[in-house]
Amino acid sequence: MTVMTVEQIEHFLDEVFPQRMGRIVSVGDKCATMRLAIAHEHLRPGPRVSGPTMMGFADVALYVAILAQIGPEPMAVTSDFNCHFLRAASGEHDIIAHAKLIKLGRRLGVGEVQVFSAADETLPVVHVTASYALPAT
Amino acid sequence: MTVMTVEQIEHFLDEVFPQRMGRIVSVGDKCATMRLAIAHEHLRPGPRVSGPTMMGFADVALYVAILAQIGPEPMAVTSDFNCHFLRAASGEHDIIAHAKLIKLGRRLGVGEVQVFSAADETLPVVHVTASYALPAT
Amino acid sequence: MTVMTVEQIEHFLDEVFPQRMGRIVSVGDKCATMRLAIAHEHLRPGPRVSGPTMMGFADVALYVAILAQIGPEPMAVTSDFNCHFLRAASGEHDIIAHAKLIKLGRRLGVGEVQVFSAADETLPVVHVTASYALPAT
Amino acid sequence: MTVMTVEQIEHFLDEVFPQRMGRIVSVGDKCATMRLAIAHEHLRPGPRVSGPTMMGFADVALYVAILAQIGPEPMAVTSDFNCHFLRAASGEHDIIAHAKLIKLGRRLGVGEVQVFSAADETLPVVHVTASYALPAT
Repeated sequence: MTVMTVEQIEHFLDEVFPQRMGRIVSVGDKCATMRLAIAHEHLRPGPRVSGPTMMGFADVALYVAILAQIGPEPMAVTSDFNCHFLRAASGEHDIIAHAKLIKLGRRLGVGEVQVFSAADETLPVVHVTASYALPAT
Repeated sequence: MTVMTVEQIEHFLDEVFPQRMGRIVSVGDKCATMRLAIAHEHLRPGPRVSGPTMMGFADVALYVAILAQIGPEPMAVTSDFNCHFLRAASGEHDIIAHAKLIKLGRRLGVGEVQVFSAADETLPVVHVTASYALPAT
Repeated sequence: MTVMTVEQIEHFLDEVFPQRMGRIVSVGDKCATMRLAIAHEHLRPGPRVSGPTMMGFADVALYVAILAQIGPEPMAVTSDFNCHFLRAASGEHDIIAHAKLIKLGRRLGVGEVQVFSAADETLPVVHVTASYALPAT
Repeated sequence: MTVMTVEQIEHFLDEVFPQRMGRIVSVGDKCATMRLAIAHEHLRPGPRVSGPTMMGFADVALYVAILAQIGPEPMAVTSDFNCHFLRAASGEHDIIAHAKLIKLGRRLGVGEVQVFSAADETLPVVHVTASYALPAT
């Protein structure tokens, strides 16, 4: 069950993390979907979407999935982040991230994110697993 | 032995990857050091340096260490990227990345990057290991 | 489409990798399921299933999923292996691994493995992503 | 400063984790060195040392480095484990692991392990970074 709506999470992020990438499409039970419109700053030679863009975008998608479960928590921080780059993502299309929590404990949340190019939503371009350390409550 | 100087690498990156973060301090045998002046866009609540900033910065430091060994190669791409966030980096200080190649094969380069806050160069704030796929030559 | 049956893969592994853990339950399109009966050698204090047991078991499950796609290849080798330990697995139950390929390229296969305790097949105890380097053909 | 000697740690492991691989060579300030004599059970086709052997061996070396700092703690458990396989290790030589802690917090220890073949102690065959969750005290 989620405890924050998309609007509430966007509003919270506008305050604490205005530099984040992308917009939230939806949140659900232990999951979140986001979409990023690609601009010049997100590109690398190719042109394709740069690795740091995809990592930062996946990271915020997982943070959103956690916020939707635990409520506004500015101090949840990424503890480890593992990323496989599977295919190139053309710089001419948006990218989409599907984040899913595979564990939400008292001290640690672990999740998985698949990033797709809007040009092909069947094969992920990036696969991430990451942990967030949750503040003691 | 390096095949490109700091100036040559910066010039090459200006052409192919102008959006990168930071400046090269030095390159050496299978290693590179970079420094990033922290601006508003690099922050998250705290204020501390954001995770995506440190990941993108570490990624480019490793790319620089590879370029110094193999020469200008726009299509070397990150294959996997593993990151541990060890300590918070205050948003009031520059960050510094030391990248070191631990394998440079024909098809794959593997390296390690330690990121430090300029406020304390004894304890790393982030530790990365990552692989770059090298184009067939 | 798979090119080897369970029996053919087990027979191949008996020859090239007799020390592996577990038995194949099934193989399918880019996926494989294995089961391991827990013995004393697989335990750590608790008693729970040891981390190295779960890592070795996940590694072989992914190898089996690759073999089912590409045929008998003794020299496919793990290139990187990332593992999150999510929950303890009681030493009193078998463990089950579901491996799924998320990329099968010419040079690299990347996959994901979820390991479950037979006591609860709804929540994974271990989540793995790993790459296999494939011999040039 | 270490709080347990090599002999004390081996004695402790004999009780709680008798199935572990290898022997401790030395422990020091936030580090440990171990050595494993290769037997048939550690091999894969080649013959080379198998991946699961190197992962399990690296995992125990990091556990030993933590024990040397915090004292006998059976319930410290691996939380995440990231491994790059760099080179083949011949099955005809011992392997050696050098583990080093890069963070030892109240709740989490993070470390790095390099595994070498005794045939060549200049180039690592495996590089690991991993986290151990430490029991609340």
